[in-house]
Parts: sequence; structure tokens; C-alpha cells
Amino acid sequence: MYTIDWIDGAVVLVDQTRLPAEEVYLRLETVDALVEAIQRLRVRGAPAIGVAGALGVALAAKQFERAEERAQAVQTLALARPTAVNLARGVHRVAALLPSFDAVLAEALRVRDEEIASSKGMARLGADLVERLCGPNPTLLTHCNTGGLATVVDGTALAVVFELHRRGALGGVVASETRPLLQGARLTTWELRNRGIPHRLAVDSAGPFLMARGQVDAVILGADRICANGDVVNKIGSYAHALGARAAGIPFICVAPESTVDLGTASGADVEIEDRGSEEVAGTTAPAGTEAINPAFDVTPAELVTAVVTDKRTFSGRADGPSL
Amino acid sequence: MYTIDWIDGAVVLVDQTRLPAEEVYLRLETVDALVEAIQRLRVRGAPAIGVAGALGVALAAKQFERAEERAQAVQTLALARPTAVNLARGVHRVAALLPSFDAVLAEALRVRDEEIASSKGMARLGADLVERLCGPNPTLLTHCNTGGLATVVDGTALAVVFELHRRGALGGVVASETRPLLQGARLTTWELRNRGIPHRLAVDSAGPFLMARGQVDAVILGADRICANGDVVNKIGSYAHALGARAAGIPFICVAPESTVDLGTASGADVEIEDRGSEEVAGTTAPAGTEAINPAFDVTPAELVTAVVTDKRTFSGRADGPSL
Repeated sequence: MYTIDWIDGAVVLVDQTRLPAEEVYLRLETVDALVEAIQRLRVRGAPAIGVAGALGVALAAKQFERAEERAQAVQTLALARPTAVNLARGVHRVAALLPSFDAVLAEALRVRDEEIASSKGMARLGADLVERLCGPNPTLLTHCNTGGLATVVDGTALAVVFELHRRGALGGVVASETRPLLQGARLTTWELRNRGIPHRLAVDSAGPFLMARGQVDAVILGADRICANGDVVNKIGSYAHALGARAAGIPFICVAPESTVDLGTASGADVEIEDRGSEEVAGTTAPAGTEAINPAFDVTPAELVTAVVTDKRTFSGRADGPSL
Repeated sequence: MYTIDWIDGAVVLVDQTRLPAEEVYLRLETVDALVEAIQRLRVRGAPAIGVAGALGVALAAKQFERAEERAQAVQTLALARPTAVNLARGVHRVAALLPSFDAVLAEALRVRDEEIASSKGMARLGADLVERLCGPNPTLLTHCNTGGLATVVDGTALAVVFELHRRGALGGVVASETRPLLQGARLTTWELRNRGIPHRLAVDSAGPFLMARGQVDAVILGADRICANGDVVNKIGSYAHALGARAAGIPFICVAPESTVDLGTASGADVEIEDRGSEEVAGTTAPAGTEAINPAFDVTPAELVTAVVTDKRTFSGRADGPSL
């Protein structure tokens, strides 16, 4: 099964909020149901929500007759989450083919297939780079979930980990738990276990210290948006790992599809950072009424990023600069 | 009520594992019960467990007749947790007065009273320093719990926050939740709310990014051990905040009683870091059987520490160097 797909006239996706306890596939037949799934992170990861947005336009084409209703649905989809460029891009690329349902669905499936091909490209280029930078059997720290669950299959940064394991060139993985929603603890560990890859879980804030103590050889993670100057917008906590990697003198590698590169955004300072509200953080542990400050993403300045790996190239510094 | 005290022939302490939901005071009449409370973090914070160790020797003096039994109990107490120097120091200082129960209890109560006086000293010196470094109404990020719950009353770093608030010189507080046991989310928020101090909770890994975005003016936190060279051993996550503060160009201030200074330990590299096992981290969220790497503390190198404030002095760099 793919993480997200179009099956028999509906969007089908695995509900990631219920993993690892239960593997439940949802069949979504309306734009509203898909928007809810995107906002509640039932589907998540920049590439996967790009595909979700594209397939969502097919739902809109099927669900609505009137052009205004379709336009409204497209708008709602594109704005379901603000940070990842993939979502709006997937939506608008496919929406350009409205009103033809057939043309819309064909284009949405091309978005899906491109993501599958993209994972293969990142896996190969990323594994080549890690082997070159780290030598044999490194222990890699990764953050959030960048595996098959974040894409259609295989993933971005975790696809590189899988490829290194396939090559017999991986020591092990430290999975950073990724508060507040624990995608590392719930999803990355689940994918690593399914593939038989040695790993240990750690709280996010332990990352820099484990690096300082020589227990991590490189950091490898994804990106929700790569700005023109090479700044990387990714899950909250990425910047702290980048500071740790710099202090420890180890590589910090971002792996994301070329579609994540956004030359229209000059730098991380220009990106709206989604604040997801108090409940996710204060939740059940803090005294009732406690307010949180809950940025979902952060910005890692380009100068802390050793290299960005996409499905097409590896570069350092500006996103419109030369490949390594 | 004090966080920990000797009342009617027993150690009485508030069970911090049940806060903020319930305020339950435990009456502990045996060394084993107290050791359990220390190991399960029912009482925690370096100064508080120093007092716990001292009062524990009074329990041993009362509970055991034979010198070998007492010696065994003293040993068990001193080793209940490995990292904070206060515990073993509190135990051994008081145990020197065995076998006299009266002398032991009187000395243990002196340890308690010294911690109370110490909090007052830190509050004053720390507030003076923050006012000097940050100017009016700074927003301070703090980590873990360093309030009255970590000492006997008032606290260490949080005592400084309380004093600034009393002076009308505090903007607000960002409380870092402090995974895996969430002392920031559960305890610091509870103390700040009780005192009417404006605050917001944040996941640990957001700290450095909030600093980079100008939303934090200084970091202020405690220490479990301060080494001779000025390295600070404190709750896991402190080092990541220190890297964030350095990158943002804001002060990073450690507040701890003089008893936390350990000139017998040359540097952080010489400190045993307690690994608290998988369950606290992997717990209920990760797939069954997931192993964690769970260092309870980390080391912040002296060069990242703007100043250390004790009850007696403020210094920068080596702990045996001059006061600021």
C-alpha cells in the first residue's frame, strides 16, 4: 500500500495519528474530509501533502458542479496548512486543468508518480553523499518522520537511511522523538522496525549532547521548504540539531524533493511559521489553562547546512547555485 | 509548607510526580521509602535531594540500631542518584555525626535552613545580574524546574524570576517543557501560575528558534553540578539552549547554590551521566520494545555560560576564579 493514493473514486490514506498502535486506512470522498485529514496531520510530510492537495482537486472536480464551488474548494485545500510549499503547488498545478475531471485526475496521478520517482533519486544521491562524508557504518540522527509515511513510499531523508542499510553501509539510527506530535517516536521507529534497521529513540533536546559526545556521526533530515538563499524550513527542532552538528563538527544534511525548493522565497525570514496553538503542547500535562507558544517549524540558516540533497542534485549554499 | 521537611519524626515531602493534578504530601518513615522517592523523582532538584539525603540520615539513625545497618543505609542514600553532588554531600556531612540521633537531626535541619537562606541569596544576586545584562522587562526562557519544588522554598533560577517579578522588572517567562519527565510543563508552569507570573510553555526544541527570532532575551536555569573549569552539568536540553543563546547573542545564566560547585571534578568530561533507561522516553507512544538512549543530564561547556550565580557570588569561567 502507498501512504496516499486514489482508489475507486476516492482518496485513500493511512491515518498517521493512529500509528503505531493501529494501521487504519481512511477512504475520503469529500474535500472537507481531506482538509480535516491534512489539518489534523492524519496525512503529513511535505511531499505527501503535496500529493494530497493534487488528489484533493480531483475530489473537488467530482464533488462540485459549479465553478465557484470548485474555486472555493481549491482555495480551502491550498490554505489547509501554510508552511509547506508542496501543498499549494500540488493544488494549483492540478487545478489549472479544471473543469475536466479526467485531466485533473491524470495530472494528480502524475504528481503521485513523480514523488515515487523522486524518493528513488534522493535515496541514491543521499546515500552516495553520506558514504563520501562519513565513511563506513555511520550512526545517523534523524528528526521527525521523513520515511514512506511522509511521501508516497520510501521517503526523503529516511529513504537515504534505507538505501544505506540496503548497501550494508549503515551503523544505526538515533530517532529524535519530535515533540509535540512525536512523529519520530511513533512513525520513524515504526518504519525502522519494519525494515529491521537498528535504532534508538531520544528526546529532541538530547540530540546536540549526543553529537558532542561522539555518539552521532551526521544529522540527516527533511525540509518543508528550501529558500532561494539555502535556508531550510523544517520541523521545529531542526535548527537546534543544526547548532549541535556545527558545534560537534559533523555533517548536517537536508534531503527533500526538488519541488520543495522555493526560489520565490528569498530567505527563511520571509516564511510564515505556523503556530499550532496551545493544546498540542500543554495538553494533559500542564495545569489547565496553560498557554503555549508552538511554532511547528523553524529555520536553519544556510550556513549551518552542509548539503541539500534533492532527487536531481546535491548543493550547498544558494538553491540556485551549482551542484556539488 | 516546605517542599521537604522533618515533621513529627518523619520526612514529609510533596509528591512531585502527582503535580499539577494533585497536591499530595507523603510521610516517609524509612530509608527505603525515601530512596524510592528520590529514585522515582517524587522529590527532585539538586538542592532538594541534598536536603532529602541529610534528613534520610536522621531516618537511618532512628530506624537502625547496629552500626553496620546504619552504614549500609547511608551508602544506599548517597548512591540513590549519581549525578548531583548535593545528595552525597548532604548525606556524608550529616552521617559524620552518627550515632547521635539528636546531633544528626540538628545538622540535617541546618542543611535545610542553609538551603532556604541560599535561595534568598541567589534571588538577589541573580535579579541584580539580569537587570544589569537585560535591561527592563526581559522575557526569560527557563528549563526544567528550579523553583521552590527543586529546593526547600523559592528555588534557584526560578527564585531569580520570582524576585524580578517582585521588583516589577520581569517581562515574562517561556517555560521549556523538559522531556522526558516534563518538569517544566508540570511543575514550573504550576509555580508560575501560583505566583501570577505571565508565562508560556514551549517544547524543548523550540528554544533556540525562539531565541533566533528575538522572542527570548536571556536563558536562566539551574545546575546539578558545576565543575572546577566552569562546565555546567544540568538537565538534558540545557546544552541545546546554550548553543541557541550563543547563536542569538543573548545571556545564558546558571543559578545554583554554592554547594553545587564541585572543585573536585575538573570538567564535565569527568561526570557520570545517568541514563534513565528506555521506558521514560519510549513509554506509551513508540512501538512496543523500542529502545531509547536517555541521558538525564548534559554538559554545557564553560565558554557558553555567560555567568554562574550562587548564593554567595557571580562568576564567569573557572569556578575557583574571581567573582564578577
